[in-house]
Amino acid sequence: MEEFNIFNLLIILTGAWVGGAAAKRLGYPAILGELVIGIILGPAILGLLETSEMISVLAEVGIILLMVYIGMEINFRDLGKASWPGLLAAIGGFVVPFGLGYYTIIYFGGTQMAAMFVAIAVGVTSLATKSRILVDLKLLNTRIAYVLMAGALISDTLALIIFAGLISFVDAGNIDTLGIMWVAGKAILFFVLTAVAGIYLLPLLGKFLTRAKIKDRTLHFTLILIIVFGFAELAELAGLHSILGAFMAGLFIRDGVFNRQISKEINDIFHDVSIGFLAPIFFVSAGFNVTLDIFQTNLLMLIAVTLVAMIGKIGGTALFYLPSGYGWREGITVGTGMNGRGAVEIIIAGIGLEMGIISAEIFSVLVFMAIFTTLTVPVFLTWTTKWLKKRGELVHQESRKGFLILGANPLGIYLAKHLDKEDFVTVVDSNREMVELAKKEGLNAVAGNILKEETMEQANAIEKGTFIALTANSEINLLAAQLANDSFYIPRKIVLMDPKESGAGVDMLDRINASSMFASKIKLDPWIYKLTSGGAQEMEVEIKEEMTTRDWIKKQKQGKDEILPLVIVNTEGRKRPFHFHDTISPGEKIIYLR
Amino acid sequence: MEEFNIFNLLIILTGAWVGGAAAKRLGYPAILGELVIGIILGPAILGLLETSEMISVLAEVGIILLMVYIGMEINFRDLGKASWPGLLAAIGGFVVPFGLGYYTIIYFGGTQMAAMFVAIAVGVTSLATKSRILVDLKLLNTRIAYVLMAGALISDTLALIIFAGLISFVDAGNIDTLGIMWVAGKAILFFVLTAVAGIYLLPLLGKFLTRAKIKDRTLHFTLILIIVFGFAELAELAGLHSILGAFMAGLFIRDGVFNRQISKEINDIFHDVSIGFLAPIFFVSAGFNVTLDIFQTNLLMLIAVTLVAMIGKIGGTALFYLPSGYGWREGITVGTGMNGRGAVEIIIAGIGLEMGIISAEIFSVLVFMAIFTTLTVPVFLTWTTKWLKKRGELVHQESRKGFLILGANPLGIYLAKHLDKEDFVTVVDSNREMVELAKKEGLNAVAGNILKEETMEQANAIEKGTFIALTANSEINLLAAQLANDSFYIPRKIVLMDPKESGAGVDMLDRINASSMFASKIKLDPWIYKLTSGGAQEMEVEIKEEMTTRDWIKKQKQGKDEILPLVIVNTEGRKRPFHFHDTISPGEKIIYLR
Repeated sequence: MEEFNIFNLLIILTGAWVGGAAAKRLGYPAILGELVIGIILGPAILGLLETSEMISVLAEVGIILLMVYIGMEINFRDLGKASWPGLLAAIGGFVVPFGLGYYTIIYFGGTQMAAMFVAIAVGVTSLATKSRILVDLKLLNTRIAYVLMAGALISDTLALIIFAGLISFVDAGNIDTLGIMWVAGKAILFFVLTAVAGIYLLPLLGKFLTRAKIKDRTLHFTLILIIVFGFAELAELAGLHSILGAFMAGLFIRDGVFNRQISKEINDIFHDVSIGFLAPIFFVSAGFNVTLDIFQTNLLMLIAVTLVAMIGKIGGTALFYLPSGYGWREGITVGTGMNGRGAVEIIIAGIGLEMGIISAEIFSVLVFMAIFTTLTVPVFLTWTTKWLKKRGELVHQESRKGFLILGANPLGIYLAKHLDKEDFVTVVDSNREMVELAKKEGLNAVAGNILKEETMEQANAIEKGTFIALTANSEINLLAAQLANDSFYIPRKIVLMDPKESGAGVDMLDRINASSMFASKIKLDPWIYKLTSGGAQEMEVEIKEEMTTRDWIKKQKQGKDEILPLVIVNTEGRKRPFHFHDTISPGEKIIYLR
Repeated sequence: MEEFNIFNLLIILTGAWVGGAAAKRLGYPAILGELVIGIILGPAILGLLETSEMISVLAEVGIILLMVYIGMEINFRDLGKASWPGLLAAIGGFVVPFGLGYYTIIYFGGTQMAAMFVAIAVGVTSLATKSRILVDLKLLNTRIAYVLMAGALISDTLALIIFAGLISFVDAGNIDTLGIMWVAGKAILFFVLTAVAGIYLLPLLGKFLTRAKIKDRTLHFTLILIIVFGFAELAELAGLHSILGAFMAGLFIRDGVFNRQISKEINDIFHDVSIGFLAPIFFVSAGFNVTLDIFQTNLLMLIAVTLVAMIGKIGGTALFYLPSGYGWREGITVGTGMNGRGAVEIIIAGIGLEMGIISAEIFSVLVFMAIFTTLTVPVFLTWTTKWLKKRGELVHQESRKGFLILGANPLGIYLAKHLDKEDFVTVVDSNREMVELAKKEGLNAVAGNILKEETMEQANAIEKGTFIALTANSEINLLAAQLANDSFYIPRKIVLMDPKESGAGVDMLDRINASSMFASKIKLDPWIYKLTSGGAQEMEVEIKEEMTTRDWIKKQKQGKDEILPLVIVNTEGRKRPFHFHDTISPGEKIIYLR
């Protein structure tokens, strides 16, 4: 084990952490920092480190685990729902740079195979890059965000399929029609086999484990690893690359197959071990293979590939986006958002280098192209969204709609009736009589204990956009919101907090990114009493200048009347609950109880 | 990356899983099955697999992570409290086989260095082996279990210290006094440096992260890995082995240094990645280095080493145990319990082989010795405990004493006063007035939300042996019991269940190994009313024949009176709460309310 050098491992991990943290602080994905650190530490600049057998073994395991994680994060349902505009953006943003990239390399005298690899690399859109940027730019609930997410998912899937087709012909070389059919047949057989195994056998295994009451997380983890390496081996047998097997395994190991809590914990392990340990080893060591000479010897090619990647991506997206009818400006905005390259691109380029299909120069060009294009994303996207905003063309849209309200008490029902106009509202309560009452009011209501996943599932929590917890018990509200967040990924959580609730409860709100209902701590009972006794009066007020909900509350507290703000009505008449993390725009109305 | 062979990885993982699961089903630790599978798949028998660079890199990372986990599991407090008998057993069970092992190898013509390695290997006691066996034999709350646990902890620590001393001289070879001082000085410096870093710097880092409100688990994981590899590198610089650094890092990365929830999750990751993925690769591949030839060429040595290991361990433990005054029979029982060898032994033997200090033959002898001695543990321990039981010498003792009662309602206080006689009881409630009332009754009481870790810490949950949740809300009871189990490792959890609580709640009870209070679902309010209005009468009944608590309840239900069984009083007058998973022995009394 002379190869096992702890010092190198220590340097790589520390470097990856420093680089990743610096990149994140600047609003970029960690992978950017890891690549740059690799270039600095590696032969290109400092020459402190170089690739070794130990590093490549760990890096290889890292990208396998990372591909599993990427697969796990892709939700079939999301892909299926990925709307017309998302599909248009994804295809345009992939096909145009793909074509341009291909001909660029051919023009520079590269082989067809190398040109195909570069084409995929410039076509890919990075998934990881975006969600953080969308949060920073407060774009999460716009139509653009929705299109971007769907676009990136489709683009990754497209890239991996083309990569699969490509890789299966690499070894084959010059072959006859029968040979081509054999190669293609094997690849198709792989996808059919893994799909059948994933769709039919895995759920059977999951059911068996559930029935046998096996809840040992470590055992589940081992079994999932065996499935992953099994799929990876199948991919290699089919003449494909192991990462495709890992990706397929990740696609199928997800919600509902195994116990939900265990799935979540194992998803966390794959996340932490890949993103927090082994994948950075791959990205840092990718930097070891970069040469700076290309800035002298291949500068034109670098510039050409980078320009083609950027123009192709943004232009292609905007062009194909036109049939959506959302305008070329939104198309360009989406294009700037999809301009980043990330993990999948570097992995594919790394495989190309390792297989000898692309040269070290082209690999270096692709790494720098990834760095440069990713650098542009927050800058360009800030410009384009500001531009849209100024023109009033930034359209808000939710990817997950509807409300799940916990608490069928009179206040819960009152709020539900307000929100039920256009969005789908489900009310949950453990008290059957109150649920019956809610049903009589025409609401969709489910009886059951909200702290149990079955109840959440029955209430269709996985589709809901907002979770509102309105029971008198803040503890229960917080725990239910945590479940809604951790197991059902509901994006917005709004929780009624009792005045008795102290600091730790507020910490918990922050951890799950929840907001407090009514933007202040409220005792529930008096209001329920007022509502049922007819002592509450519904009022409406229009806001003249932009202010946060808490500022509005502060202003009202100066008055003598106790009030309870329920919903904010925007200029289009859409209602949203009144909560802490919100800002009221001029022209919006507040409906409150007095 | 030609070395990266997914097929081999798949076979090893699958083999490890099958072997481990089979061993566990037979009541043995998984490592036993993994070693046997390695011998079967490896050159010794089938010749399907052999060591490769990929396997050794992954195995090396596996043992580093495993040593971190082993270190994390060792609690300083436990070591400090490890009682006189535990210390005696550990020293006797280490020193005697150590000496015998050393001279056995010298007798067979081995080098001094090899003899020292074998001596450590036969001296070691396996930690992992035992807890499962103790559960199977229902020994967990006996004095033997307590002594065994402490003994194994001390033995592992002893073995690693001697290993450190040994390894630091391996490279040095024949040196003068100055050289020896230099070598020893470096080793001592390592322990001092890591101890200072662990005791002073790590908590500072933890505090910094807490103050900066950094709760990103992945970041914590990366930082901890950097610390681990940093310590490992320090160990190598000091002329020691990296596993010592990993072990020291694990020792210091534990409760209280980082956010408790994050610590727990990271502990889980180290557990799953080492025990569920990488460590089995090490143990299976250890089997690849085993040769069966020794059964012909070195049979005498194998028999000698195995006998010396067994007789030395059992005899040595019994001998040194005599001053405890607990008798030689209990000493022999403890010795049979400590006779297993496991992870640490195989790791040390592997290092010896890798460094060329011991031959492949001696390595094989040590692997078979580990297998044979571990095989004896459940068999011998069953015999010896039956023997003790028959003589009435099986002494029960708790390693964690005292009760934590959630709910300062009248029933909680009533129960607390019953249990408070000899054991330390703490009552917790969120209602300050009720807590004040409990204090006036002379009880130790804490006001706070039990679902928060701070409250649990304030109530000294980490020292308690039993958690009793007695609020009217079954949900809260279950969640609090889960926290008590997951974050404070309280061995016994007893939960009041409301009659409304359905199947899922009972599932939860099982998952955290909790039992229901009063052995049946009870509505709390009527009993509290009876207690406060003076309508409840305390009765006592002696049991004539052995029966389970639920059978007793069934018998009572035939009567017309409603009763509430509170505590069971054993023949020595000690009281324990009346709950579902308990059996009442003849002569024991039940105190109940009517």
